[in-house]
Amino acid sequence: MRTRFFNARILTMEPDREIFVGEVWVVKDEIIFVGTEEEGRSYCNDHPDQILIWDREIDCKKNLLMPGFKNAHTHSAMTLMRSKADDLPLSDWLNTQIFPIEAKMTGEDIYHLSKIAILEYLSSGITAAFEMYLTPFTVADSFRDCGFRCVQTSCVNNFSQSVELLEKYYTDINGKDEFNSFILGVHAEYTCSKELLEECAKLTHKYKAPFWAHIQETESETKECIERYGMTPIEFFDSLGLFDYGGGGYHLVWTNDHDREIMKKRGLYVVTNPGSNLKLASGIAPIKEYLEAGIPVAIGTDGPASNNCLDMFREMFLVTGLAKVKNMDASSVDAKEVLKMATVNGAKAMGLNDCDVLAPGKKADIIMLDLMRPNMQPINNIEKNIVYSGSKENVIMTMIGGVIRYENGKFNIGEDIDAIYAKAEEIKARLYS
Amino acid sequence: MRTRFFNARILTMEPDREIFVGEVWVVKDEIIFVGTEEEGRSYCNDHPDQILIWDREIDCKKNLLMPGFKNAHTHSAMTLMRSKADDLPLSDWLNTQIFPIEAKMTGEDIYHLSKIAILEYLSSGITAAFEMYLTPFTVADSFRDCGFRCVQTSCVNNFSQSVELLEKYYTDINGKDEFNSFILGVHAEYTCSKELLEECAKLTHKYKAPFWAHIQETESETKECIERYGMTPIEFFDSLGLFDYGGGGYHLVWTNDHDREIMKKRGLYVVTNPGSNLKLASGIAPIKEYLEAGIPVAIGTDGPASNNCLDMFREMFLVTGLAKVKNMDASSVDAKEVLKMATVNGAKAMGLNDCDVLAPGKKADIIMLDLMRPNMQPINNIEKNIVYSGSKENVIMTMIGGVIRYENGKFNIGEDIDAIYAKAEEIKARLYS
Repeated sequence: MRTRFFNARILTMEPDREIFVGEVWVVKDEIIFVGTEEEGRSYCNDHPDQILIWDREIDCKKNLLMPGFKNAHTHSAMTLMRSKADDLPLSDWLNTQIFPIEAKMTGEDIYHLSKIAILEYLSSGITAAFEMYLTPFTVADSFRDCGFRCVQTSCVNNFSQSVELLEKYYTDINGKDEFNSFILGVHAEYTCSKELLEECAKLTHKYKAPFWAHIQETESETKECIERYGMTPIEFFDSLGLFDYGGGGYHLVWTNDHDREIMKKRGLYVVTNPGSNLKLASGIAPIKEYLEAGIPVAIGTDGPASNNCLDMFREMFLVTGLAKVKNMDASSVDAKEVLKMATVNGAKAMGLNDCDVLAPGKKADIIMLDLMRPNMQPINNIEKNIVYSGSKENVIMTMIGGVIRYENGKFNIGEDIDAIYAKAEEIKARLYS
Repeated sequence: MRTRFFNARILTMEPDREIFVGEVWVVKDEIIFVGTEEEGRSYCNDHPDQILIWDREIDCKKNLLMPGFKNAHTHSAMTLMRSKADDLPLSDWLNTQIFPIEAKMTGEDIYHLSKIAILEYLSSGITAAFEMYLTPFTVADSFRDCGFRCVQTSCVNNFSQSVELLEKYYTDINGKDEFNSFILGVHAEYTCSKELLEECAKLTHKYKAPFWAHIQETESETKECIERYGMTPIEFFDSLGLFDYGGGGYHLVWTNDHDREIMKKRGLYVVTNPGSNLKLASGIAPIKEYLEAGIPVAIGTDGPASNNCLDMFREMFLVTGLAKVKNMDASSVDAKEVLKMATVNGAKAMGLNDCDVLAPGKKADIIMLDLMRPNMQPINNIEKNIVYSGSKENVIMTMIGGVIRYENGKFNIGEDIDAIYAKAEEIKARLYS
């Protein structure tokens, strides 16, 4: 498949490159050209051997092409519990509403339920997800069948999965297909014994691999770890050598200066999840402090039961808005920095180094945003306006690996959406009976 | 125009009425029937004199009909400055970016610029706006020409407009046409002299009318009023008799128990603007405390330069999410309460007592939300999911006064949207030259 996008505003997300009007050319799953129309003509003159016959030429009508958003933390199949139990204290929510249902979910259920989340990612311009859930193999199948890019880590803990399984996921999912990869990780400090974590540290050393977990999401989790080990979870994980090859943490709402020193030293990433942190009353992450410490931040929606939507626009606004109110400073955490978090930093955190920007040789994970919707008018500062005013209504196209999976409200993931919804209702009827 | 909506899920927003499947019938600008299909047949038998020939019958395909959202605080024409100057401290933003441009804006500019906001309201399911801006007569013309419901108050202060003009707006805009009304008010305590406010109090008594203003948006504004008068703005306004016939305040982020006692006693409304309060680092309003004190809360977006979008879905999520994190309690401020704020409470605050719920005799200000988008699936709890997961992408129809002004992404406000955008670009070129 060869696709030519023309007459587009283009935001490549390369450092210091301003938005310009031009073209993006895609051959198979790769971008082969990004530039002005004139540069396009030069390219053709310079490559007389390449005969470019397009399968499709898309007039972007001055709308914006940019790299797809990277949802750097989610639990996709929790669509089942979306809005099933809200406005509850966290412990009630987990113990009475989430865990009992999860105990009944099968790998096949998770395969089907993940697809609803994938649809929503596409509608929000998200082209890759950093996923953690119960059955990594069926999750991988679901994402592969939809043609959606997925990086997984495991939720191994004292009660489910195991270090043996973790290693099997790592060796079997990596390289399995073009859409899936796997990174070492566990659920969280508070659900894992020291012995389990020590075994994990052996794996990170064996594979010289980064390590991820939910870390310091709540104040109580952080305090309890200090009571248990005299260290915060970041300090404790680091003391076990888990971060010797980098990695990062999801949430990281409650960190201190020493945590941030370790994070900087180990090259860790923060994945912030502001919507979830509000809804579950976890707190407001110290984003400004991370930026000042030189720690890269990426953005995740968290799962649909704890957010409840999978909308990168809402998360982007929250990252900057919450930083501003936390610091009581309207200049805190610039919107352009937030756009980098949602694209480039997410890609790097997830190890998707060829999905970060629009440039020749990079994967064709591209979205088109409609600038003619009223929320984008008049056109003053497109980048800031995406963060402050952008919405799912602006996403008119989502392409992953050169294939358009979403266009003008219609999905193309190999299965009819009504069938996906019907399957979810079936599962709901069974699990909630 | 006679419109029959059938096969709809219906959320009337009447107290304790659950969502049911049925029909809504609209004749001219009014709802004449809301009920099940069977009740519809009974209605016809009971009214043999009424021959119902429909101009249009709409199969809602089990999507949701509900009352339109009420945007209870905005400055529509500030679309001009949307994303023009962000990430700045509040005083810099106002003094270097907003005031100099506003000084150059004409009434005709404001007429045109308001229309971009009206388009965005429609796309967000908003059917009425509580507006405050520089030229109330041209604002009224703009909303009337678009067929959009507008309640205005003035922004009279020491530097613009006057109490004489305020009275003229009040007498001339009320009753002018079916879309416009006007409520007494001023910009804010910190921009008005005591003498000016005393003159306003005479007007509220003359017309036995409620009174509105920006109140206690920032901590410094509140402190400075205490330094000036030994009272908070709420206490000060009340001491002048401004609240003798009720009214309310926009923002009200920084209030104490005594303020809330006065607010309860005077029957005041709070209009909360959480998006703006984050972006301008004003703070987080004490919503839980208002509810506990029995003070009704409505929701506004504030203007597009301070938010920057006009999206009731984002505001609704923020109202509950910020309350949860402020109180560190995930059960704080139930989503269903938030839905009431965005509809019924907004209507009441704005004096639109016939636009609050879907019921016979009420104005036909109705929206349809698409429940088949992935963010609404599977269908667990529709009301909570609108608040937690809803998005502009869910709005498939917005009807005001019996006329469909927005449907499936297309606008119907009597002027082509490209012409509206072009006009804004013209104004921008002139004012920023």
